[in-house]
Amino acid sequence: MTNTFNDTILKAYNGEKTDYTPAWYMRQAGRSQEEYRKLKEKYSLFEITHQPELCAYVTRLPVEHYGVDAAILYKDIMSPLPSLGVDVEIKKGVGPVIDNPIMSVQDIERLGMINPEADVPYVLDTIRLLTKEQLDVPLIGFSGAPFTLASYMIEGGPSKNYSKTKAFMYSQPEAWFALMDKLGDMTVAYVKAQIQAGALAVQIFDSWVGALNVEDYRYYIKPIMNRIFSELRPENVPLIVFGVGARHLLLEWNDLPVDVIGLDWRTSIFEARQMGVTKILQGNLDPTVLLADWEMIEMKTKAILDESMEQGGHVFNLGHGVTPDIKPETLKKLTELIHTYSKR
Amino acid sequence: MTNTFNDTILKAYNGEKTDYTPAWYMRQAGRSQEEYRKLKEKYSLFEITHQPELCAYVTRLPVEHYGVDAAILYKDIMSPLPSLGVDVEIKKGVGPVIDNPIMSVQDIERLGMINPEADVPYVLDTIRLLTKEQLDVPLIGFSGAPFTLASYMIEGGPSKNYSKTKAFMYSQPEAWFALMDKLGDMTVAYVKAQIQAGALAVQIFDSWVGALNVEDYRYYIKPIMNRIFSELRPENVPLIVFGVGARHLLLEWNDLPVDVIGLDWRTSIFEARQMGVTKILQGNLDPTVLLADWEMIEMKTKAILDESMEQGGHVFNLGHGVTPDIKPETLKKLTELIHTYSKR
Repeated sequence: MTNTFNDTILKAYNGEKTDYTPAWYMRQAGRSQEEYRKLKEKYSLFEITHQPELCAYVTRLPVEHYGVDAAILYKDIMSPLPSLGVDVEIKKGVGPVIDNPIMSVQDIERLGMINPEADVPYVLDTIRLLTKEQLDVPLIGFSGAPFTLASYMIEGGPSKNYSKTKAFMYSQPEAWFALMDKLGDMTVAYVKAQIQAGALAVQIFDSWVGALNVEDYRYYIKPIMNRIFSELRPENVPLIVFGVGARHLLLEWNDLPVDVIGLDWRTSIFEARQMGVTKILQGNLDPTVLLADWEMIEMKTKAILDESMEQGGHVFNLGHGVTPDIKPETLKKLTELIHTYSKR
Repeated sequence: MTNTFNDTILKAYNGEKTDYTPAWYMRQAGRSQEEYRKLKEKYSLFEITHQPELCAYVTRLPVEHYGVDAAILYKDIMSPLPSLGVDVEIKKGVGPVIDNPIMSVQDIERLGMINPEADVPYVLDTIRLLTKEQLDVPLIGFSGAPFTLASYMIEGGPSKNYSKTKAFMYSQPEAWFALMDKLGDMTVAYVKAQIQAGALAVQIFDSWVGALNVEDYRYYIKPIMNRIFSELRPENVPLIVFGVGARHLLLEWNDLPVDVIGLDWRTSIFEARQMGVTKILQGNLDPTVLLADWEMIEMKTKAILDESMEQGGHVFNLGHGVTPDIKPETLKKLTELIHTYSKR
């Protein structure tokens, strides 16, 4: 790429003034794109995620086609788990499935530790390829957070109510904290390697932690989240925390040493500020709105921007990931609208 | 039964002082009980729900075994839908599945209307059997709310993000409001018949409406909820509204002409009062806590009761339904703890 590097999103993450509101979309790369679906006819998911050239291509596509202000690695949050000895299979129509879920403290003791250069070289090579040569916007690195990763490891797959996970947490607190520590160490090592390879911001996905109430979050989760972000702090890149249905945890997140809090669509920017959230906010258009008419999309997008331009400190995103039924044209038009409408 | 009628829960729903905090548990009847599982070896789900004697037996079991202060009809929220011409099948391990989901305004126009005495006589006969002869505690009638019912009708089954439902709502508002009206009329007719048959309180399950933000709730849902409760008001029984993950909608519910708001475990009684919720509160022990050790269960239960005895106006329940892996002994012990600990 010959363009100059566009660091608008980094400025926004750092609380500096920008010429317009930058945007990216969770799950912007992948099944919603025709080029990706074509690639999937020739290559398996394993090949795409393990061959840096293919993975870089998929990661780059939405930047080129939608004009977003950041790339995010095309990768599942489960991808570092095999390096700990956890066998993950992505089952079509189901999600990540783990055949030998965690049941006991022995299962946790048996878990290994990630050595990123040895275990996930293809992840780091993809980042290097993208950031050294191909991208003119920042690449966002990421990891799943301990609760969310643990939920898959204990349930054996996606869950509606996380009852096994929470029962484990309530019944075996020592084992739970040992698991949080291991997953915390993994998160820090995995993310640090991504930053060293060239990632310029990091999002930690605690997608399902909203299943816990505030009291349990404080006791069982906050300590490890505090440690993760404190250990990443010296890397000097913007740190983002995100989860869905976590309105009740926003003030807990606001206590963490993070720069940015991701909102889902259930809490408006105005409400978050009213509650006392002081961090930069990222979000929060309901992705299902993108299945409606353009008039509706435009109205809801402008409403978010009107609020955020009044309140300040905002990076546009969706409230959750792009679903495969959202049209690429819609995302392209959305970025144009965000950029034009927010021009200061 | 020869005992005198225990109306403690009705007093609590009406805001009167009671000798102790009454309790019942969502999904207290069904798969968590051994007697139910034995019955299922001989009879199909259809037989159990359609034969008043069997259904009354299942409904009564938890009252006898757990000592709860109310019975709730053993019935799925989907059960009135066939009377509208919607074919519902309860698939094992999946939930309610609908083969011909709603796609258009024509599909909505084609929907019929419920005539409870003709369409669901077995529901009303079950209620009569229970309330005229068998129960010494109130029977709570119930219905699904329009958004939650519509979500199954549009998605064709359970959903994680309700994207088809919300896309329909955003894209075809006239059709959406027509659907809300039909489902609202059905809810009112179905619930009125339950009250006439002997139900002494009514809970409207808007289980999944927390998927909407406040703005959309106000525009797309609140009008029909207002109408439903206003039309039920003259029946003069306590009216309860409940949904999970709906903390952001609590003040909207507080506006509705209801008596009681059901909380899930994500919002404590104290927080709800702080937010300005003035109705009687029902809830809110996380059902997954019931899979932990008794010490944990006792601690969390007492914490809820300590709060509620300070704040007043509380009926104990879980934050969501009993799951099949919760042991009946635990629920029995829980009721004893609630009754003993809350004795004034």
